Amino acid sequence: MPPFQIKFMPESRIIEVDQGTSLLIAAAKAEIYIKSGCGGKGTCGACKVVVLSGDPLVTGTGNLTPEQISSGVRLACQTAVQGDMTVEVPPESRLQEHQVLMGDVQKGLLQVSDHDLLEKFGHHPLATKLRISLSAPTLTENTSDWSRLKMELRRVLETGEKSIEIPLSVLNHLPQVLRQANWDVSVTLTDIESGLTVTHVEPGNDHPPYGLAIDIGTTTVVVYLLNLLTGEIIDQQGTYNKQAKFGDDVITRIVYAVENEDHLQEIRLAIVDTINELIDKILERRSLSLTDFSSAVVAGNTTMTQLFLGVNPRYIRLEPYIPTMNNVPSIPARDIGLHMLPEALVHCYPSVASYVGGDIVSGTLVTDLANGEDIILFIDIGTNGEIVLGNQDWLVSCACSAGPSFEGGGITFGMRAMPGAIERVIIDPDTLDVSLKVIGKVPAVGICGSGLVDCLSKLLGAGIIDRAGNYQMGHHSASERLRGTEDDKEFVLAWAHQAGGDKDVVVTENDVKNTIRAKGAVYAGIRTLLNMVAVDMDMISRIIIAGGFGNYLNVQDSVQIGLLPDVEEERYEFIGNASVKGARLALLSQNAWREAKELGQKMTYVELSVGPTFMDEYVSALFLPHTDFSLFPSCT
Amino acid sequence: MPPFQIKFMPESRIIEVDQGTSLLIAAAKAEIYIKSGCGGKGTCGACKVVVLSGDPLVTGTGNLTPEQISSGVRLACQTAVQGDMTVEVPPESRLQEHQVLMGDVQKGLLQVSDHDLLEKFGHHPLATKLRISLSAPTLTENTSDWSRLKMELRRVLETGEKSIEIPLSVLNHLPQVLRQANWDVSVTLTDIESGLTVTHVEPGNDHPPYGLAIDIGTTTVVVYLLNLLTGEIIDQQGTYNKQAKFGDDVITRIVYAVENEDHLQEIRLAIVDTINELIDKILERRSLSLTDFSSAVVAGNTTMTQLFLGVNPRYIRLEPYIPTMNNVPSIPARDIGLHMLPEALVHCYPSVASYVGGDIVSGTLVTDLANGEDIILFIDIGTNGEIVLGNQDWLVSCACSAGPSFEGGGITFGMRAMPGAIERVIIDPDTLDVSLKVIGKVPAVGICGSGLVDCLSKLLGAGIIDRAGNYQMGHHSASERLRGTEDDKEFVLAWAHQAGGDKDVVVTENDVKNTIRAKGAVYAGIRTLLNMVAVDMDMISRIIIAGGFGNYLNVQDSVQIGLLPDVEEERYEFIGNASVKGARLALLSQNAWREAKELGQKMTYVELSVGPTFMDEYVSALFLPHTDFSLFPSCT
Repeated sequence: MPPFQIKFMPESRIIEVDQGTSLLIAAAKAEIYIKSGCGGKGTCGACKVVVLSGDPLVTGTGNLTPEQISSGVRLACQTAVQGDMTVEVPPESRLQEHQVLMGDVQKGLLQVSDHDLLEKFGHHPLATKLRISLSAPTLTENTSDWSRLKMELRRVLETGEKSIEIPLSVLNHLPQVLRQANWDVSVTLTDIESGLTVTHVEPGNDHPPYGLAIDIGTTTVVVYLLNLLTGEIIDQQGTYNKQAKFGDDVITRIVYAVENEDHLQEIRLAIVDTINELIDKILERRSLSLTDFSSAVVAGNTTMTQLFLGVNPRYIRLEPYIPTMNNVPSIPARDIGLHMLPEALVHCYPSVASYVGGDIVSGTLVTDLANGEDIILFIDIGTNGEIVLGNQDWLVSCACSAGPSFEGGGITFGMRAMPGAIERVIIDPDTLDVSLKVIGKVPAVGICGSGLVDCLSKLLGAGIIDRAGNYQMGHHSASERLRGTEDDKEFVLAWAHQAGGDKDVVVTENDVKNTIRAKGAVYAGIRTLLNMVAVDMDMISRIIIAGGFGNYLNVQDSVQIGLLPDVEEERYEFIGNASVKGARLALLSQNAWREAKELGQKMTYVELSVGPTFMDEYVSALFLPHTDFSLFPSCT
Repeated sequence: MPPFQIKFMPESRIIEVDQGTSLLIAAAKAEIYIKSGCGGKGTCGACKVVVLSGDPLVTGTGNLTPEQISSGVRLACQTAVQGDMTVEVPPESRLQEHQVLMGDVQKGLLQVSDHDLLEKFGHHPLATKLRISLSAPTLTENTSDWSRLKMELRRVLETGEKSIEIPLSVLNHLPQVLRQANWDVSVTLTDIESGLTVTHVEPGNDHPPYGLAIDIGTTTVVVYLLNLLTGEIIDQQGTYNKQAKFGDDVITRIVYAVENEDHLQEIRLAIVDTINELIDKILERRSLSLTDFSSAVVAGNTTMTQLFLGVNPRYIRLEPYIPTMNNVPSIPARDIGLHMLPEALVHCYPSVASYVGGDIVSGTLVTDLANGEDIILFIDIGTNGEIVLGNQDWLVSCACSAGPSFEGGGITFGMRAMPGAIERVIIDPDTLDVSLKVIGKVPAVGICGSGLVDCLSKLLGAGIIDRAGNYQMGHHSASERLRGTEDDKEFVLAWAHQAGGDKDVVVTENDVKNTIRAKGAVYAGIRTLLNMVAVDMDMISRIIIAGGFGNYLNVQDSVQIGLLPDVEEERYEFIGNASVKGARLALLSQNAWREAKELGQKMTYVELSVGPTFMDEYVSALFLPHTDFSLFPSCT
């Protein structure tokens, strides 16, 4: 049977797919990324599309209303191609390109800047490149090509006892290259603690060696291109993780991946493709060749790391939540399929446990948390909140499941921080009139995590909700915005006619309660960790917040709702994408990489589900800001 | 076009091949190995077959006589299939299975026996296997699977600082195996100087780990199966090198291999297939699985080693004769395609130069030459004669091209030591009557190298040839056996009616001269090396002879014709296939393997083509036994 043509609107982009392909997969093939919270199970309703023509096979309609169904709305994941079609993908169903967090410091400054850290650790990258001139062999000076090259490398590098190896694939080309280049060659080497390995030999040139620092986030992926000689960031590129089509969060992806070996490979290739596309863009823009990329350091959470390597993540999800490995062997790019020198080593950050991954170890390295007497609290808030506490003498870490609220999941109009997302809310306590700040200055489509935190703070401030998150229907200012529906109560942030969709953008009481549960989990995690080591909030000199969501967070709002501890704002710092920064640091410094690996082993992981402490703390935190007001003296 | 059926006689074996396939290749496909001295160029005339039916495309007839052509004789390499055929392969055209030299000592004894050597170096094999029981993880004891296993391995192995790595492919299966085996597993590890690597994890069992010692000869390949725990040789298997179809000697094979990448791969796979078939036979006979084979050590000459690894051998053949590498990286079996644990390391013996290879280093290790004050001369005679001289303080080596005479090439009735080959000749000086000893006690088909040495000695002794190798047609005993032909003079060893073929088996004057050139080259190599280091023959305590040809050699005959130095017979020792013995030793002892690698670097290689010394020696040696009689006092 011939493939069918699917035209996606409004782009008018046409692709061909085989019978039975779901519209979700078809759209991804057309590079139109549709939201898929449940991983294609037809339950989350995020992947709505409108079938404009054609007669697909509909296997489910989930929570679609009869009106929607009659007007052609379908769930992309539950609609299979069986002929030519035209399909519209509305904006609210799209994962839109937005400013992927590149690691720029958005607010505040890290006291020890990246540059200072590199100076501290010393600039000695994980790969190097040398120009080598050899004398040609003769009948009497007739050692082998490789011995000749190795001897000269040893002399130039002053390697002492450190071994120098060469893989077979490089050896295979060595004789030809040496002779074609008239014995004047450039040699690229991997340079790690255990030894040096020649990864490339080419005719002599003076191009520098380049490396890639890669952050694999569950949602977004960022690549830095580094000149390994100077340490300079030459380029950077970010995009969505293509794994999104298998589900929004790590659990959904694990469920998909463990179904069979094909799924595992599919989800592995999705992330490899994501990174390769970023590399290709950089490669084209900088007129480089893939043989210029001589090393990579990857930081990602434990699930992302295992999926990237094709290691089955089954036991990450099953109690007692055991990852296959914390320390990851360094692997040649050819075995992974990255667009780099085939023999270039790809180094993955070690993880601490199933839910405290390499991204957190990488971030911890960047905070320089383990190198002073000051106690530092490091928090990365996303779907999970990962928390690290300690100083040079001790380190504890934990992960608390905040749920998807902060990332836009489980919230009626929740969405990620992208154009159309409400990020700031101002409510007049007297009139309940609302002013909004929307990312991209476009009509509001939904509300992102930081907007939600702000919104809760303002709803509370205006007396629209009480400290338990209940809507106060008898609020002194009667307003159409505060209204009860059949199932729920809600507050209208933007009217349909102002909004980008066809409905009023509202925050329901259920949304409020979900957000309280999310912030309660994070705060309870912090408290549990502090209790564990008998550290008082006052003893903490700095609180460092990392991550996409954290970066846009307003400290005052966060304290008002009890998400973050109530300490002076000066103690807070935001370091943006600490994960990719740590990857850069490791790539440029063998000492940093050694410390990163030690960090991973030094961090004690606290499993919050053991014992009653966390649950007690959690229940106490399901209040705005907290049941124990003494913890939030600045909140009135 | 459908494939054609070719029936090979007398086996009546039928195979199918495509149009255009040469009969040489077709026969190999039928597992009938035809001699091919020139590598399929139609010049050596060794691959004669008789076409009984069918009409092939004949592209050349080489040196076939009109009579042969009219009776259906064709050169297999110059005859292409273009329809169904029946072809007879006569015995003299076949590489027949014969007793491949397994390393057994046939004559004499090595003073330091293999067993003593192993005791000396210490039994510490290059791979090991451990039974490990782990405690199951819990919520509070929740380290990763790999950390858990590694910690226990470290404890049991007392590895100290030595690293323990695990490749991705083993990591991939680790979680499942650990849980299926209820945390009781058997772990196979590569154990080399630079660190340990887990190559296999399986449910707990008490089977020992096995290793393979492999000798890749240009002509034959031998595999030993070793129990790595006890050091015992469990099984052994030998066969012809399948590369023979690309030519008899290394030069012909290099010429074929460097033509294009396909040829290189073809010739690489030929040797890999040869080894795999030997492994498969052992595997079946011993009811083992390929995952039982946890390590291999390979010894071969420089060309064999490069071809085995697919490294282009182009520059081995071109002046100044530079191999790509002397030290070979250890390579996982999966990258080579050997039937072993995919991650098991295959270690190749280092070579010294293009014509002193890993087989010689391996043999030198077994002679224990470099560990005493006594000066020892080690000679491996085949197509090339490789010579090593030295003691604990110094080592020199060289290679002299003896030509193919000793292996049966370039001699009218020359053949390898296989059934039908004359190995001993007795000539009555008065009657010129001949008695023969033929391998396999079958009618004589030809004469092998050791037979040729014996024959020359007896021809000389009987006065049939003079010291320059000229036939004495005026010999006092008139005999039909000594006769002049149109082109040459010859001596009949076996009459056609007694012989296995249809012709008289003769030794021509040309054969005699070729043999003198071969023995002259070897002796000149010995003399040149001795002169180089100013060592007199008297200072040499032992002369150790290795190799297939050497093993059947008669010392007295060899001295009589001036092939070997004229010293007391007691100083001679024969060690058979020293190459595979050295592979075994390295496999069982990390110290032996370290010494082998050091040996490779310690040996000074003398290129005989530099300077006039070798050529002068060679010319002086073109006499029976030598122009300088004082060197051969026992010859009269």
